[in-house]
Amino acid sequence: MNFVEQVEKWGVFEVSLPGPTDGNPFVDQVIKGVFTGAHETVEADGFYDGEGVYKVRFMPSFEGQYTFAVSGSFLAGEQGGSFFVTLPQEGNHGPVRVANTFHFAYEDGEPYFSVGTTCYVWELQSDELIEQTLETLKKAPFNKIRFCIFPKHYDYNFREPRSYPYEGTPMDSSVLSKDNFFHYIGPNEGNDWDFYRFNVEHFRHIEKSIQQLGELGIEADLIVMHPYDRWGFSFMTADQDDLYWNYVIARFSAYRNVWWSLANEYDIMEHKTIADWERYAKIIVEKDPYSRLRSIHNCRYFYDYTRPWITHCSIQRQDIYKTAEHVNEWRERYQKPIVLDEIVYEGNIQHGWGNITGEEMVRRFWEATCRGAYAGHGETYMSEDDILWWSHGGKLRSDTYKRLAFLHEILCQTPGVGLAPYTGAHFDEVAATVEGTKSSFSPVKDYYLYYYSFMRPSFREYYFDDHSEYELKVIDTWDMTVEDRGIVKGHFRVALPGKQYMAIQLRRVAG
Amino acid sequence: MNFVEQVEKWGVFEVSLPGPTDGNPFVDQVIKGVFTGAHETVEADGFYDGEGVYKVRFMPSFEGQYTFAVSGSFLAGEQGGSFFVTLPQEGNHGPVRVANTFHFAYEDGEPYFSVGTTCYVWELQSDELIEQTLETLKKAPFNKIRFCIFPKHYDYNFREPRSYPYEGTPMDSSVLSKDNFFHYIGPNEGNDWDFYRFNVEHFRHIEKSIQQLGELGIEADLIVMHPYDRWGFSFMTADQDDLYWNYVIARFSAYRNVWWSLANEYDIMEHKTIADWERYAKIIVEKDPYSRLRSIHNCRYFYDYTRPWITHCSIQRQDIYKTAEHVNEWRERYQKPIVLDEIVYEGNIQHGWGNITGEEMVRRFWEATCRGAYAGHGETYMSEDDILWWSHGGKLRSDTYKRLAFLHEILCQTPGVGLAPYTGAHFDEVAATVEGTKSSFSPVKDYYLYYYSFMRPSFREYYFDDHSEYELKVIDTWDMTVEDRGIVKGHFRVALPGKQYMAIQLRRVAG
Repeated sequence: MNFVEQVEKWGVFEVSLPGPTDGNPFVDQVIKGVFTGAHETVEADGFYDGEGVYKVRFMPSFEGQYTFAVSGSFLAGEQGGSFFVTLPQEGNHGPVRVANTFHFAYEDGEPYFSVGTTCYVWELQSDELIEQTLETLKKAPFNKIRFCIFPKHYDYNFREPRSYPYEGTPMDSSVLSKDNFFHYIGPNEGNDWDFYRFNVEHFRHIEKSIQQLGELGIEADLIVMHPYDRWGFSFMTADQDDLYWNYVIARFSAYRNVWWSLANEYDIMEHKTIADWERYAKIIVEKDPYSRLRSIHNCRYFYDYTRPWITHCSIQRQDIYKTAEHVNEWRERYQKPIVLDEIVYEGNIQHGWGNITGEEMVRRFWEATCRGAYAGHGETYMSEDDILWWSHGGKLRSDTYKRLAFLHEILCQTPGVGLAPYTGAHFDEVAATVEGTKSSFSPVKDYYLYYYSFMRPSFREYYFDDHSEYELKVIDTWDMTVEDRGIVKGHFRVALPGKQYMAIQLRRVAG
Repeated sequence: MNFVEQVEKWGVFEVSLPGPTDGNPFVDQVIKGVFTGAHETVEADGFYDGEGVYKVRFMPSFEGQYTFAVSGSFLAGEQGGSFFVTLPQEGNHGPVRVANTFHFAYEDGEPYFSVGTTCYVWELQSDELIEQTLETLKKAPFNKIRFCIFPKHYDYNFREPRSYPYEGTPMDSSVLSKDNFFHYIGPNEGNDWDFYRFNVEHFRHIEKSIQQLGELGIEADLIVMHPYDRWGFSFMTADQDDLYWNYVIARFSAYRNVWWSLANEYDIMEHKTIADWERYAKIIVEKDPYSRLRSIHNCRYFYDYTRPWITHCSIQRQDIYKTAEHVNEWRERYQKPIVLDEIVYEGNIQHGWGNITGEEMVRRFWEATCRGAYAGHGETYMSEDDILWWSHGGKLRSDTYKRLAFLHEILCQTPGVGLAPYTGAHFDEVAATVEGTKSSFSPVKDYYLYYYSFMRPSFREYYFDDHSEYELKVIDTWDMTVEDRGIVKGHFRVALPGKQYMAIQLRRVAG
């Protein structure tokens, strides 16, 4: 047996045991661990990691002494030991949780203001490209990234991935071109996979990617299933799907930065039914001991986000023109955090889901923000090498990310865990105030953020009451400037430059 | 008696008679004319024009010999005569009518593609400013202008008008400022009007304005009532309102370029009920012998545009984000021409209804156009002299009008009376084809206009059939260029510059 004697709180403690290699260890053997500290007892399934090695992973949520006991189909009896959980290291705030109805926070209480991006299969590219993506992420503000476990087959994405999740061989991809790739959706001749034998290298690599993201403070919004497939991974049997889900959960759930996205565009996986999605959800709820964040992403039709297993809405916009502008109604209907994971990517490809300007991307982020929601970025600029951030990662071609970093800075000034739509706003402005706490949902009216979107007022007039004094700042969300305008009170007028994308911030300082 | 012996078809023939000046001629006397040609007999009310002169006006719709007979409360018997109606002069296409369900044409069959603007009280400004407005209109593409008969009291509009519609004296306007004008909405102390005695100079001046517009080929979309009032004109009694309506109809209806807009923002005239509007509509339907175009403009809530007296929808956008994008549903619901008379003005004033960019204005026009509707322009840029086009006319501060002229040119290439939404368009493009005729509503698929709005595709791919050949043009709606791309057929790909506001035009030439 082989284990680390010390692990930080919210770190990963791993038990590794030798075991049989004969037959099919992935289906013939089971292994699980029970981890016990003063404040928790956690059962976690283990998994076969190839070459006769079995592992069980655990994330402790408390400091202090723990014991563990591992049992398995190939073990005569329990094997156990103990370890010590230390204070979390700097920068480790624990997993992200739903902090109040509409917002997130890390488990240590630090607010988490999500600024996501999407790079569907960044981790399945070459070492060089992965390195470039990580370098880009280092300087970008993104604290969540959506990506897939399965490789992706779609426009701009029909090259071979670096590895496959199963043992076997893929179809011949030399037949593919930009003109015919769509005909190869689904299981195709020439694929030869054993859906009962995982390619452990594929999963080890994804673990490494999750860890690398963790080191950058980025949540890994793992897309476990998706329809962009020429290999048949989206056409497996229920039995094969369940084996996959169990394996994924056993391997990944101990990483504190993992979120479960059951699918990207679940509703265009026509061979999966709602009963299938509910069954997968049941497996996660039962087998993920940490209740990681769970959602499912739509193409045309929202999943029923009121389902109790769904922790937050992971939304692709349904309307070409109004995207984040629908947040208010979604908050009202679902009473969960609203994450607009797909609001159209910035770029210039032929598809309408990938060709808005940077200005419009940033505008949608601000609209979402000031309505008490979170948005996600993506970039789809045509390039000669067909490396598009949205799918492959690499370099960002625009500097929109700087504006999102600026927005994140402003968000971090929120006196609380998040923003709520301010219902006192006029029809031609979007305004936010501070979200109420769990015990009191009335917004705290000590802080306001007004956003004028594409409108260009040369001034605006406000009145809250006669006595409150507010510190006023004028924010240019595109040029990233903040202008201090001193203290205002009673009836006051805010001179503005008559430009698009302006905002003001008001913070009560007295009265 | 005093009359012109010849008048052009769709011109104005006027009979002028002396009559009593004692008592109140506006209410004590009535006068009407019956005008008879080979193809029509028209009854028209006359009106008192002051200084003992009574007039009856008539617009003939046919050429040839006409007779007329005038009778009045002050006349012993009928007085009559004859006149001859000549061919219309060049540029006189007759009044605009609804040509098929969704589109307009002049009475001579020439299509009328409406490109409107709004200058609420341009005609009540100084002679110099009126002259400037007419100069601006000469170079602009606008073929319809919305303006009010009553003076306007509102933000940027609280100076005295050049004249008032009634005899009497207005309140002292020196008490007004930008900060208090809103408190003076409604009838105020200091106003002293005789709502039974019209100021004929006011109406003569408006007639002159209607004629000047007519000479420029511009339809006068007359706003007969509106809520922006400090004089009490919007608070008159039913009796006074009816007298006003009858007077307006008697004076103006013979001018072929008159349209009746019952109100601007009818729904914020809270002291008027639907019964009132229906009563005014009944008066117009009875008293306007020419069935001029009739509509009513909303603030928040649409009037019931299915009412039979309404010839077309005169719409102010209800949604901040989606304006012209709602056209398809409005066409479906109302089955009448859709005129978006207010889609937010280009400018930078504080109000959200007056501060969009020129780009957004033009985009909304194109969205409306490619959905088979018409839009209206307006400009509200802050200026030191408080002369804003939207209300006062004068000069245009932006060159958006050039883009609207360009759009009008493209519209004039429509092989038919108007465009219909092309239902074969993909979700991420707006496309139009030719509207069907009255007897056949299936669109004629020989012509397509695709618009990409704010999206920036670098190319798009199309396929209609294997045999049809289309002449392809790539249109930059903002930079106003048209690029000839030759003939396309079968599956074809259109390279685009990856910019916003692009369109393509396809015209079937063979196959």
